[in-house]
Amino acid sequence: MSFNQPQDAAVIPRFAGWPSFMRLPFATSAAGADIALVGVPFDGGTTNRAGARHGPREIRSQSSFMRRVHHVTQVAPYDLVNVVDAGDSPVNPLDLMDSLRLIEAFFRDIRSHGARAIAAGGDHLVTLPILRALATDGPIGMVHFDAHSDTNDRYFGDNLYTHGTPFRRAVEEGLLDPKRVVQIGIRGSIYDSSDLDFAVSNGFRIVFMEEFAERKPEEIMAEARSIIGDQPVYVSFDVDALDPSMAPGTGTPEIGGITTFEAMRMLRCLRGLPIIGADVVEVSPPFDVSNTTSLVGATMMFELLCLMAEVIAANRTTV
Amino acid sequence: MSFNQPQDAAVIPRFAGWPSFMRLPFATSAAGADIALVGVPFDGGTTNRAGARHGPREIRSQSSFMRRVHHVTQVAPYDLVNVVDAGDSPVNPLDLMDSLRLIEAFFRDIRSHGARAIAAGGDHLVTLPILRALATDGPIGMVHFDAHSDTNDRYFGDNLYTHGTPFRRAVEEGLLDPKRVVQIGIRGSIYDSSDLDFAVSNGFRIVFMEEFAERKPEEIMAEARSIIGDQPVYVSFDVDALDPSMAPGTGTPEIGGITTFEAMRMLRCLRGLPIIGADVVEVSPPFDVSNTTSLVGATMMFELLCLMAEVIAANRTTV
Amino acid sequence: MSFNQPQDAAVIPRFAGWPSFMRLPFATSAAGADIALVGVPFDGGTTNRAGARHGPREIRSQSSFMRRVHHVTQVAPYDLVNVVDAGDSPVNPLDLMDSLRLIEAFFRDIRSHGARAIAAGGDHLVTLPILRALATDGPIGMVHFDAHSDTNDRYFGDNLYTHGTPFRRAVEEGLLDPKRVVQIGIRGSIYDSSDLDFAVSNGFRIVFMEEFAERKPEEIMAEARSIIGDQPVYVSFDVDALDPSMAPGTGTPEIGGITTFEAMRMLRCLRGLPIIGADVVEVSPPFDVSNTTSLVGATMMFELLCLMAEVIAANRTTV
Amino acid sequence: MSFNQPQDAAVIPRFAGWPSFMRLPFATSAAGADIALVGVPFDGGTTNRAGARHGPREIRSQSSFMRRVHHVTQVAPYDLVNVVDAGDSPVNPLDLMDSLRLIEAFFRDIRSHGARAIAAGGDHLVTLPILRALATDGPIGMVHFDAHSDTNDRYFGDNLYTHGTPFRRAVEEGLLDPKRVVQIGIRGSIYDSSDLDFAVSNGFRIVFMEEFAERKPEEIMAEARSIIGDQPVYVSFDVDALDPSMAPGTGTPEIGGITTFEAMRMLRCLRGLPIIGADVVEVSPPFDVSNTTSLVGATMMFELLCLMAEVIAANRTTV
Amino acid sequence: MSFNQPQDAAVIPRFAGWPSFMRLPFATSAAGADIALVGVPFDGGTTNRAGARHGPREIRSQSSFMRRVHHVTQVAPYDLVNVVDAGDSPVNPLDLMDSLRLIEAFFRDIRSHGARAIAAGGDHLVTLPILRALATDGPIGMVHFDAHSDTNDRYFGDNLYTHGTPFRRAVEEGLLDPKRVVQIGIRGSIYDSSDLDFAVSNGFRIVFMEEFAERKPEEIMAEARSIIGDQPVYVSFDVDALDPSMAPGTGTPEIGGITTFEAMRMLRCLRGLPIIGADVVEVSPPFDVSNTTSLVGATMMFELLCLMAEVIAANRTTV
Amino acid sequence: MSFNQPQDAAVIPRFAGWPSFMRLPFATSAAGADIALVGVPFDGGTTNRAGARHGPREIRSQSSFMRRVHHVTQVAPYDLVNVVDAGDSPVNPLDLMDSLRLIEAFFRDIRSHGARAIAAGGDHLVTLPILRALATDGPIGMVHFDAHSDTNDRYFGDNLYTHGTPFRRAVEEGLLDPKRVVQIGIRGSIYDSSDLDFAVSNGFRIVFMEEFAERKPEEIMAEARSIIGDQPVYVSFDVDALDPSMAPGTGTPEIGGITTFEAMRMLRCLRGLPIIGADVVEVSPPFDVSNTTSLVGATMMFELLCLMAEVIAANRTTV
Repeated sequence: MSFNQPQDAAVIPRFAGWPSFMRLPFATSAAGADIALVGVPFDGGTTNRAGARHGPREIRSQSSFMRRVHHVTQVAPYDLVNVVDAGDSPVNPLDLMDSLRLIEAFFRDIRSHGARAIAAGGDHLVTLPILRALATDGPIGMVHFDAHSDTNDRYFGDNLYTHGTPFRRAVEEGLLDPKRVVQIGIRGSIYDSSDLDFAVSNGFRIVFMEEFAERKPEEIMAEARSIIGDQPVYVSFDVDALDPSMAPGTGTPEIGGITTFEAMRMLRCLRGLPIIGADVVEVSPPFDVSNTTSLVGATMMFELLCLMAEVIAANRTTV
Repeated sequence: MSFNQPQDAAVIPRFAGWPSFMRLPFATSAAGADIALVGVPFDGGTTNRAGARHGPREIRSQSSFMRRVHHVTQVAPYDLVNVVDAGDSPVNPLDLMDSLRLIEAFFRDIRSHGARAIAAGGDHLVTLPILRALATDGPIGMVHFDAHSDTNDRYFGDNLYTHGTPFRRAVEEGLLDPKRVVQIGIRGSIYDSSDLDFAVSNGFRIVFMEEFAERKPEEIMAEARSIIGDQPVYVSFDVDALDPSMAPGTGTPEIGGITTFEAMRMLRCLRGLPIIGADVVEVSPPFDVSNTTSLVGATMMFELLCLMAEVIAANRTTV
Repeated sequence: MSFNQPQDAAVIPRFAGWPSFMRLPFATSAAGADIALVGVPFDGGTTNRAGARHGPREIRSQSSFMRRVHHVTQVAPYDLVNVVDAGDSPVNPLDLMDSLRLIEAFFRDIRSHGARAIAAGGDHLVTLPILRALATDGPIGMVHFDAHSDTNDRYFGDNLYTHGTPFRRAVEEGLLDPKRVVQIGIRGSIYDSSDLDFAVSNGFRIVFMEEFAERKPEEIMAEARSIIGDQPVYVSFDVDALDPSMAPGTGTPEIGGITTFEAMRMLRCLRGLPIIGADVVEVSPPFDVSNTTSLVGATMMFELLCLMAEVIAANRTTV
Repeated sequence: MSFNQPQDAAVIPRFAGWPSFMRLPFATSAAGADIALVGVPFDGGTTNRAGARHGPREIRSQSSFMRRVHHVTQVAPYDLVNVVDAGDSPVNPLDLMDSLRLIEAFFRDIRSHGARAIAAGGDHLVTLPILRALATDGPIGMVHFDAHSDTNDRYFGDNLYTHGTPFRRAVEEGLLDPKRVVQIGIRGSIYDSSDLDFAVSNGFRIVFMEEFAERKPEEIMAEARSIIGDQPVYVSFDVDALDPSMAPGTGTPEIGGITTFEAMRMLRCLRGLPIIGADVVEVSPPFDVSNTTSLVGATMMFELLCLMAEVIAANRTTV
Repeated sequence: MSFNQPQDAAVIPRFAGWPSFMRLPFATSAAGADIALVGVPFDGGTTNRAGARHGPREIRSQSSFMRRVHHVTQVAPYDLVNVVDAGDSPVNPLDLMDSLRLIEAFFRDIRSHGARAIAAGGDHLVTLPILRALATDGPIGMVHFDAHSDTNDRYFGDNLYTHGTPFRRAVEEGLLDPKRVVQIGIRGSIYDSSDLDFAVSNGFRIVFMEEFAERKPEEIMAEARSIIGDQPVYVSFDVDALDPSMAPGTGTPEIGGITTFEAMRMLRCLRGLPIIGADVVEVSPPFDVSNTTSLVGATMMFELLCLMAEVIAANRTTV
Repeated sequence: MSFNQPQDAAVIPRFAGWPSFMRLPFATSAAGADIALVGVPFDGGTTNRAGARHGPREIRSQSSFMRRVHHVTQVAPYDLVNVVDAGDSPVNPLDLMDSLRLIEAFFRDIRSHGARAIAAGGDHLVTLPILRALATDGPIGMVHFDAHSDTNDRYFGDNLYTHGTPFRRAVEEGLLDPKRVVQIGIRGSIYDSSDLDFAVSNGFRIVFMEEFAERKPEEIMAEARSIIGDQPVYVSFDVDALDPSMAPGTGTPEIGGITTFEAMRMLRCLRGLPIIGADVVEVSPPFDVSNTTSLVGATMMFELLCLMAEVIAANRTTV
């Protein structure tokens, strides 16, 4: 097998060449790919500061810093599976409901090619149509890094679809198995003391920052794995889970978050799980003065890529 | 009569006190006011870079630089009429059509109090519901500063309502009299050579930058006044009419624009006209690294305020 | 009782509406309030980089991110007590001594209404006139978060009043009981090895970063509480106590500081104490490229508000 | 004939999709193209502030703002000729002489495909190897916009190849016909009163800003055309020709420059000339806080593209 | 005679070496110098946004861009006179009145060495003590570039000394001959219609922007020279005279100002006048996101240096 | 003995006066000095984002924040030894090999005066010529803080000298004793799984972040001291060892790094070692939006200065 390779930084400097995800070839579909890196440039579900629509472009640019091999796991994803930059999902910045349809169709198409997607958002609402495309055979589990539970009910009157509501909707629609959902990094003032009732009563395991600070990341993830089990799982990484000093470029920062190093350590604990899709969302370049949040986003995508590539390759080998 | 006065900068420094428009009192309605300064924090009609939702707050903050008297016309608006900061229009960042309704109702309410509004946008779509609230007695005229004609038909399939289409809709809805519309500052590459056909065929007077550069601002405005006549007129000021060096904080910059000084000279040429409403739109603070675009926006609002105050006071006097 | 409520973010988006502290109503005095949130826009005591005069305005703006309920303590301050934004203290940017008088008078007025103030500075000198207004019945205790002890003697010849000297003056004036002062986060190079002699010899408990790093925040605060006792205490939070990565927008940054999460944990340890006033100082927006320091300041004010509201309400109930 | 078309902004928003030049397809060579838009990410010839190596990537990103048709000339380049983004020239950031060879070879390859290149620099030294690739049949003419003549002799001892020397070298190497070189926008303090002797004595026509300000751009360009004649000409556009308020993101800014509008008017005066190549250089994103200089660069590339497309199409038609 | 020379940029790159004014040697006094370039890092007279205290350091840094010879006048100042960087005036950031004394003494010392000073501010109040040091033999004339007349009376109660009042004080103190004062660039809203009465009634010649825009800079300066005559004159250059697009880094920006090119042309019109001192004030680096205002300040200092050097050398020769 | 003293901040404010390292006198050589603080403004070895050439100037400016005495060790370096700012090494930004020669000669000269240097880079390649100047009597040891091992072999074909290769070269040239090299903070994706083979096989002790996070800094340094022994050692501090939230201004950021506090604690563990030279490299001001990385660099230089001053003074005393 011959797989797509990133442009070689020892030949083409990192500031030169195509600014695709990981410096991989651009493709117009996921055909032939095991893993499709894609953008979902939509922030129409944002209730406060927009800007995540610009996330995919800047994460692509900063992903030029990524190299080929994971220094801890020694996973070399481009030796194991075929990865492409399959471009951006169609979106309609003027029409939220139309965008939900377009995004779902885009991810259904990726899945139809047998590929798995790692998506760069976009705001957190984009996870809902992705889940609709993936959870066609029943609810799935989720490891969810975030400052917010995103299980509110509605905003501005009767708006059901916002970046603060996707996981309530996903449970209601039977996309997520609430007993197999773990949320990590939750914190910050809340609208009402009942804000988390939906999540709690449905069985989400919520790890608040206060608990997180008392335990080692590896401990928390061991518990998470016991909850998730070995069934298909989705990983959703909202960069506002991180402390704003490390991820300032986001729409709803909450001080007192997890560090990037803790986040990477937690992701590495997911090694071997059947991750059927993943995203990194809420990177908002207009508020990211040094582009560091985009660099963080790109690095988290690389961590996810290594996890998924290893499992796909292992499954292929065993077959 | 005793009118609202700005906080006195010789007592309360400009960096202190309420960051209302012009340091005026905040009010919850336009009751009792001749002129209401208001925000319309909506950018859901934006097809490219959002951010104008943050315009009202930052323009308010920068309006602290404004003093009490116009140094050229010697108009002292707060001695002539009652002016308030009547707050922000309700908007729904998740629902464009709902926002159009909310904005229209807000401006109808201002009008019901006998007040005239000067609005800080928001993107240029917000002018459409404002016109709906104002043009209830037939189409009105408009002096329109902009890099773009904003008379496109639709985007992303069938979206009729965007910041690139308000004036086509306004003509179709009978809100604007196309024979009394003057557009100044138009420039930049276009999608198709037919882009301006609607405007031209309906009778808009378009002053391209190429023509503008050959004539004095006062000449152009003399022609504009002859077109507008002495009937009610609306003034819409999109900051992208200005050169991006002077107004970088906007969503769709086009290089080669008019200067702030030319713009102020042109506005001053409107002295005496029955301006029934005005706006300054497309100030986008996330892209405005020095806040200079907000300062420009605040200054243009002050110019408009002086124009409108003088006419209102003159009419009152003559009665 | 009916208390002031913040503008509802589910109706008025956070980027819209009045940019008051916590989106509360603006008031012209503290009359009728239990707690007054106020600004002290003065930085005339600054010996190096000025800019804290702009702190109140930007902290107000960033306080839009705050919601209604504390997610850990479940305290809902606006259900317990009446809170207002009582505006900014008068200041004279040209005259330090006049400003000290104006600030003291402003806080005496708040106190005369029976309200307690949480102040947003301003540089750290502003704490001195606040203490003068509060400590009229004898010296009080203080929990002080800072990189610097602020007990130097004089600068630039004979200047006694600077942001580096307030707590030496406060001890000399009998405002602070030095045996009930705890300083946390102290670090950084010093002018002379005798710099801290005044504080140490008077009995301040100084927790250097080197000690802080070895103990848990809760441990340190347990000791602090034992020192402070249950008598009235003031809380002064200089944002340069925090690491500059988390609070870059300040005049005298010192690397190697405490984290925002540690700071919040420490503040929560003050639950139940009779805090008679508090401040968050040295937020300097001109040096705060992402406004994150203002967000930090706003969040610390919310933590302080919850602490003070709970105690006031408890006292009222028991009466 | 069917030509490459930019991604349609009415379907794929401008913030989405491939960030190629003008949203055109990326190609790995200029085969099949009439015009190749390319990057030359090299700034190793820079004697002061580097950063132009990042120019191509950011100009590509900002070129998303460009539409399809020139609003003044009505030229629709993608209807006339085949245009591609042919990627970046290989460069060696560690070795200036190697880079000169690599760049020359890259442009020889483009030429071998019968295509003409419009290059985005990179610093101004990159024009030298481009001229070496183009001027194989004898010296050519040049229209050169710049604050500096770039005809110094050497720097830091004996370094002949820097961004301050390319046109002295080009004359010495017989690449440029000095009698057919026009330099526009020259200004700023000089090292020595003899700095311009080489240019003047060889016959360059230098239009200093002081002269420029006294004449209309069209007059100057009429003279330029009379000097250039109808033989092949190269156009080199250093963004520091522009005023730093309009192009702050450059390594050697000189205040008091030409405006973007004047520059566009001048470029349009070159209509019909046999331009065999062109560049836009010295865009330095690290110093371009708002990305406006990259937007300027992208717009100038579009102006050049329209000029060259029209001539190529006209020549094809007449054949 | 052997004069101080700037570090040679062809040997020591501009980003290296001492960041003194013009890369000249630092000196601890003006002894032996004909012209002393000095800083006055004081902004305690500022009524709104401080920051000009940082002006001298950043102007020094940006002055690295200056070369040795004026390209229009061919004046080579370092060949004509001895120039030094004589450091910064002592100031007291905590005590305005003390600072006025310190600054006056510093400039008296420079004068005692027979040197003339070009000062980098600091806010505009610093011009008052400079004039006190210079105008010991009777009132002098002044060419003053500014958006504001700076002839207000008092602020915040009874404060006589602010950056808005220096020239009223200077007239009252007999330092300026009001009949020989020309103010250029005045504009912007005013506190009261009587704001300019003092200046006008005393005989200042005020050139508003509205008049300025109608005439050529050279015409205006011809009139200015006829007013100034051939007696000693001071030149005070407030960067807010310039348009904020060209000088954003200042405390009190007013849109619609003069261009840097116009300013340089005007300064060059002062050739031959007996300028006994000059300043460039109100450069405020914290608000100068690209450092362009500091570059502007440095360039204006170079223009002034060439003017003064030429006259000093001419006088020496003729003696 | 009378030693150089920094300008006194209680007399000359920190924003005023000479922006030399630590506000010390500038000298033109290291003659008479025990320790020379110097800049090496060269970034020609950078393979990705340049900018470290601007490091020395900005670190000098930020070093104004440093005071006189170390608050933990109570070391007062200016009381113990003579320290100067000996200026910048000559460099040639156009010629890498020439720069290596110039830098080596500069450091040989410092050594010839009996002084030890603490250098502010520049990129990490500058450490190679410094080592050449120091290791003339045989290989030396090194404590190396970095995200990268910098022991790659070559780039862009056959380029041996880059900021990614200095320590492979140093071993090959016999400058470093690989058995006495400790690298701390290594992390991030790698080009190839063999990237670290050279370092490992030669005996470098590499402390990856993953190990670092499990141990206390003091433990790691105890091991480092046992490896280094009591023979001469060089300390090289690449700011990318730090987390990008604390040191964003660098060319090759890797998320998940060490904190500044941990770094200072580790440096303090080197107390008493015979450090014969040290550097702080890869501070890149164009990417350092708040100048915090320069402040970090200045603080690390102060830590190193205290270490070296104490040992030099102790040795002098004992003699």
